[in-house]
Amino acid sequence: MEVSSEVRPVSRLFTAGVLPAACPSRTVLDHVTSRWGVLVLVALAEREMRWGELRRTVEGVSEKMLAQTLRTLEADGIVHREAWASIPPRVDYSLTDRGRELAQRLLPLTDWIADNADAIVGTAAASPES
Amino acid sequence: MEVSSEVRPVSRLFTAGVLPAACPSRTVLDHVTSRWGVLVLVALAEREMRWGELRRTVEGVSEKMLAQTLRTLEADGIVHREAWASIPPRVDYSLTDRGRELAQRLLPLTDWIADNADAIVGTAAASPES
Repeated sequence: MEVSSEVRPVSRLFTAGVLPAACPSRTVLDHVTSRWGVLVLVALAEREMRWGELRRTVEGVSEKMLAQTLRTLEADGIVHREAWASIPPRVDYSLTDRGRELAQRLLPLTDWIADNADAIVGTAAASPES
Repeated sequence: MEVSSEVRPVSRLFTAGVLPAACPSRTVLDHVTSRWGVLVLVALAEREMRWGELRRTVEGVSEKMLAQTLRTLEADGIVHREAWASIPPRVDYSLTDRGRELAQRLLPLTDWIADNADAIVGTAAASPES
């Protein structure tokens, strides 16, 4: 491999603050890329869901973690919570406009992961370091 | 908000295994979207870096977490590690072809986060639930 000492232009990311530790983007990154955050967003990108549907769709999530994840994403203006005064009570969760914008950027990544996961896990299993 | 009972076609994601708990995609999702995983990938998408550069660029990462993150991404075939028999010893890290494919899908997401983080954190601060 060639050792390059060339200095490439610094991307927007380095100046706009994904990397600096003190920036809000770190907080949002944590919310959005948390294990359950990603899975909830992928599920709601599919369609609006009730609590119980989300709980079943996001396999393995506990009630506590689902509640916490939804609360965080709702506070971030990414998920919309709609409670109906019905009997039995019903609560629907959906993406806001901001959430849909985010999902548009998230789904190509999760699609790629789904397509490549088998090959990647195979690589790790074959590696002496894994 | 209208309550929709329409059944939309199930996306590839639901069948290809981002959501099922037992699938390799969950493992890869954890590696790639871990806090330090994302930041290391964003840094290396910019350019090849030595250990010390990575340590400074990914602000706040400990030596232990950086080593662990790099080891995981190397085992996944996403990061390439090149050690030079020089004095002093030198180790370069770069993205593999697979890593560049991944970065192409990750950067639109992290760009969006950088662009929207201030507004999102403002939303959360204004919310009674935060």
